[in-house]
Amino acid sequence: MPSIYEQDLDRNPANYQPLTPLSLLARSALTFPNHTAVIHGKSKTDYRTFYARCRKLASALAARGISKGDTVSVMLANTPAMLECHYGVPMIGAVLNTLNTRLDAAIIAFSMDHAETKVLITDKEFSKTIKAALAEAKVKPLVIDFDDPEFAVEGERLGEIEYEEFIKDGDPEFEWRMPDDEWESISLNYTSGTTGNPKGVVYHHRGAALMCYANVLACSLPRHPVYLWTLPMFHCNGWCFPWTLSAVAGTHVCLRWVRASAMYEAIAEHGVTHLCGAPIVMSLLLNAPAAEKKTFDRVIKFLTAAAPPPEAVLAGMAEAGFEVTHLYGLTETYGPAVVNEWKEDWDALNSAERATKKARQGVRYQALEDLTVMDPQTMTRVPADGETMGEVMFRGNVVMKGYLLNPKATKDAFAGGWFHSGDLGVLHPDGYIQLKDRSKDIIISGGENISSIEVEDAIYKHPAVQAVAVVAKDDEKWGETPCAFIEVKPGMELTSDEVQAWCRERLAHYKCPRHVVFDELPKTSTGKIQKFVLRERTRQVA
Amino acid sequence: MPSIYEQDLDRNPANYQPLTPLSLLARSALTFPNHTAVIHGKSKTDYRTFYARCRKLASALAARGISKGDTVSVMLANTPAMLECHYGVPMIGAVLNTLNTRLDAAIIAFSMDHAETKVLITDKEFSKTIKAALAEAKVKPLVIDFDDPEFAVEGERLGEIEYEEFIKDGDPEFEWRMPDDEWESISLNYTSGTTGNPKGVVYHHRGAALMCYANVLACSLPRHPVYLWTLPMFHCNGWCFPWTLSAVAGTHVCLRWVRASAMYEAIAEHGVTHLCGAPIVMSLLLNAPAAEKKTFDRVIKFLTAAAPPPEAVLAGMAEAGFEVTHLYGLTETYGPAVVNEWKEDWDALNSAERATKKARQGVRYQALEDLTVMDPQTMTRVPADGETMGEVMFRGNVVMKGYLLNPKATKDAFAGGWFHSGDLGVLHPDGYIQLKDRSKDIIISGGENISSIEVEDAIYKHPAVQAVAVVAKDDEKWGETPCAFIEVKPGMELTSDEVQAWCRERLAHYKCPRHVVFDELPKTSTGKIQKFVLRERTRQVA
Ligand SMILES: Nc1ncnc2c1ncn2[C@@H]1O[C@H](COP(=O)(O)OP(=O)(O)OP(=O)(O)O)[C@@H](O)[C@H]1O
Ligand SMILES: Nc1ncnc2c1ncn2[C@@H]1O[C@H](COP(=O)(O)OP(=O)(O)OP(=O)(O)O)[C@@H](O)[C@H]1O
Ligand SMILES: [Mg+2]
Ligand SMILES: [Mg+2]
Repeated sequence: MPSIYEQDLDRNPANYQPLTPLSLLARSALTFPNHTAVIHGKSKTDYRTFYARCRKLASALAARGISKGDTVSVMLANTPAMLECHYGVPMIGAVLNTLNTRLDAAIIAFSMDHAETKVLITDKEFSKTIKAALAEAKVKPLVIDFDDPEFAVEGERLGEIEYEEFIKDGDPEFEWRMPDDEWESISLNYTSGTTGNPKGVVYHHRGAALMCYANVLACSLPRHPVYLWTLPMFHCNGWCFPWTLSAVAGTHVCLRWVRASAMYEAIAEHGVTHLCGAPIVMSLLLNAPAAEKKTFDRVIKFLTAAAPPPEAVLAGMAEAGFEVTHLYGLTETYGPAVVNEWKEDWDALNSAERATKKARQGVRYQALEDLTVMDPQTMTRVPADGETMGEVMFRGNVVMKGYLLNPKATKDAFAGGWFHSGDLGVLHPDGYIQLKDRSKDIIISGGENISSIEVEDAIYKHPAVQAVAVVAKDDEKWGETPCAFIEVKPGMELTSDEVQAWCRERLAHYKCPRHVVFDELPKTSTGKIQKFVLRERTRQVA
Repeated sequence: MPSIYEQDLDRNPANYQPLTPLSLLARSALTFPNHTAVIHGKSKTDYRTFYARCRKLASALAARGISKGDTVSVMLANTPAMLECHYGVPMIGAVLNTLNTRLDAAIIAFSMDHAETKVLITDKEFSKTIKAALAEAKVKPLVIDFDDPEFAVEGERLGEIEYEEFIKDGDPEFEWRMPDDEWESISLNYTSGTTGNPKGVVYHHRGAALMCYANVLACSLPRHPVYLWTLPMFHCNGWCFPWTLSAVAGTHVCLRWVRASAMYEAIAEHGVTHLCGAPIVMSLLLNAPAAEKKTFDRVIKFLTAAAPPPEAVLAGMAEAGFEVTHLYGLTETYGPAVVNEWKEDWDALNSAERATKKARQGVRYQALEDLTVMDPQTMTRVPADGETMGEVMFRGNVVMKGYLLNPKATKDAFAGGWFHSGDLGVLHPDGYIQLKDRSKDIIISGGENISSIEVEDAIYKHPAVQAVAVVAKDDEKWGETPCAFIEVKPGMELTSDEVQAWCRERLAHYKCPRHVVFDELPKTSTGKIQKFVLRERTRQVA
């Protein structure tokens, strides 16, 4: 006999509704219609209007026959149109595919074909690349140009209609549809391709809704935060912040171009409380010319992820009066899913010790059910000794549905019931994880693992170093040896010998770079250094 | 052909886990093991120990053969054992049934029989009632006594074993089970019986987990709040706060007896940041003798629900330096599911206007998908005019599974795909709802609806009134007329004529009470006035 708790207690529309971030926007529009939702250039849009514009977009797309399971690709900067697409597209069950605006035509054509793009919304700024991509792609989407009314940009219109024109006749009271199921897809993000061919990561409404709550908790977002868009929204849907802000009726401050002066001005002018970005954005703020810098009478919260934050940068931010929260995640985990939870005791540590604590990636998000470091062969946890390396593994509701049209990669990624991150790390005795390297970036010298992050951290502490990357160089005797590529700060000087001497004071001998190259570092659009390019370059180094 | 988004993108353990509040405790124990989880009397328990004790309880229950779908009833005050039961019981898939400690033996026996109670954990303080209940009940549960080591209470041990003894040999590393499905039942709460026979409201893991997030948002809980237990945990599982605090690693301050002096002392001693309670708890704080009162150099947040908060009490709290958030909900909605979202503009209003705004119940919780006021016959929304009355209706994931073993009541409650609250209210033009009365409490005089709440609010403003309730008295001519029952403040005087004159200045004539009775008001354990008792009494009023 079934338990008494399984009798006549089923789901019905009154007690079960699919989780989705869309209903959070509806709520903010109802509750705070006059609160500013979006600031862009000189324009301000309140929640009433923002919600109405999203519904107009949804209805205009529906009128063109776009519906559930169709892909809408967008090539947009951090503009209001991009925010509206995060709602308007899924409001009709379509899937939002945000294209990385720095990619080239070939890869964009590939993505659109792979995603079977039905509509492309594209910013005039990127018309050159998109024109070429459209010529190359097999799909023939409806093309809509976004011609930013706030910023004059070079470029031509490619499409049939301009964005504002397109939504003009849309219905501001459009009855958008709840997803049929919270497992329904909401967006498609191609991985940044740091380590190879991009894969199409698919998110669902359930995960996106839970990320809204989890981001609020991880970042202690208050009601009505003012959020500056220094993180590209095309990257993991801006870590789900386009949706998260609706949970707390926050204000989005758009930023078309990420420059230090623009950031400082926006923070001052709009009372920004929070911003996100890769460590490179922090460097940008710290290394800005004195004339561009501003100081603030309040603490501004900076949430960083995407690459290992050098301890020196963390220390610099603390000094500059920013409160940094260190997050970690992947495109496959909706952006950040791990947070360096700060402990009150640690405030008493000295600055270097605090930076060391802050450099650890931390513990799982509330919405992630499990996180650990395992031997990927045996699928057993490594001892929590802070030393034994293993692969970082995730499990929970903020892990992607899988890779689009790539069952093989999906299966591999989920082998053994855990998501395999490809990141190598350790488990500290207190349960915090720390990344040591990517599987593909670890250097194996004379049989010993060398974490490129560890060597980089040591070099970053040198006052003349602007940026550094350490990669493996093939070596007949040792198999591999570390090779350091360094960008020197403007106006400063540094020699190979100095770097080697610096490292020998701080690192075991075998970890010190055998070769040092002074050169500009190749970076991806999200501020990551492309180590595979550097590994190529080591062949030319003698 | 299925859409590309429906191919090979299925659930698996890596990307899908049932939502449950249990994993939030695991996370806090991992992240903040040394942070104080529970304070009770002179004892302090950190998160490491609290989690271990919950697991010991779970394992001890499992060792007795308790498992999925079994009911564990508890008759406990706001003590650590009660908190542990909120985790230890569902850790083995069992269902926690918290008994209202003020109920009598007959109704407790009824509840245990209805719930097929397998285990009863009972505080010595309630042994007299429980002894009688056990004699009357058909079920023969395993009885465990909780003999509070911090507070000596009268009473005898009734069971086979004492709580501490029972969990002593439990396994602190017990591998508790995730629910098989997030729809699995987590707790059973009998309604308070204000309007009739109690019904068994069943909650699931999904709703409880979402309430954790939603409470954090509605109450703007920061990391590490210090929460004083002035709300009975047996009531709607303490509005899900036993679980919510695990999401933010907060500190529970237990309170066995709710007295003004104990509250003020706990607030001062433990740095309490938040507390919850019915309006009567606010009155208790405000009406405390001056010697017991304390002032604080910080703002303490008081979250109130359960009954309409009189405007006068809200104004008093604001003056006393508490920040009051007004919530509304029912046992059927996991406690509060509606929040009076405060708008910054309203700060500029005068005190009476602010209290009027604050008295409105507000808008849906983030985790509630829809809330409205409808004509229950036609199921159409009332106009948002602040005047047209209808029944308040809820829809979403924080609505109960249904009533246990009561398909008829469940079906009625969910008729038309909405949960029918039995509360009458209006929709204001700004989308906020305001309760006017319970369906059963509305007074119909000469064909006109009179909201008992409106009349009470007017009388509450009289400085000599401690408490008031207005109910319908049968009347040959008008059908019904309002009859007011009043408790006068100690040392003050008030006459029937004065009350009538006071009301005529403030209310339409037909709304003024025809009869005024000075008497003590019958209240339920959760501080609600039992209007059905008063309606009985009106027969004696001439
Ligand atoms: N806080 C952090 N510290 C160190 N590394 C981080 C941090 N956050 C993210 N990363 C790195 O970024 C990776 C996730 O990046 P993302 O998903 O954007 O694309 P990618 O992995 O760089 O590209 P691809 O998967 O195509 O190679 C992680 O696997 C990790 O290596
Ligand atoms: N903020 C509030 N303002 C006015 N009334 C409230 C508020 N919060 C709760 N209530 C009242 O309390 C009711 C919910 O109470 P609860 O579920 O605890 O038991 P009950 O309804 O009193 O008992 P029963 O259902 O057995 O009659 C609501 O339906 C509403 O009438
Ligand atoms: Mg990757
Ligand atoms: Mg009720």
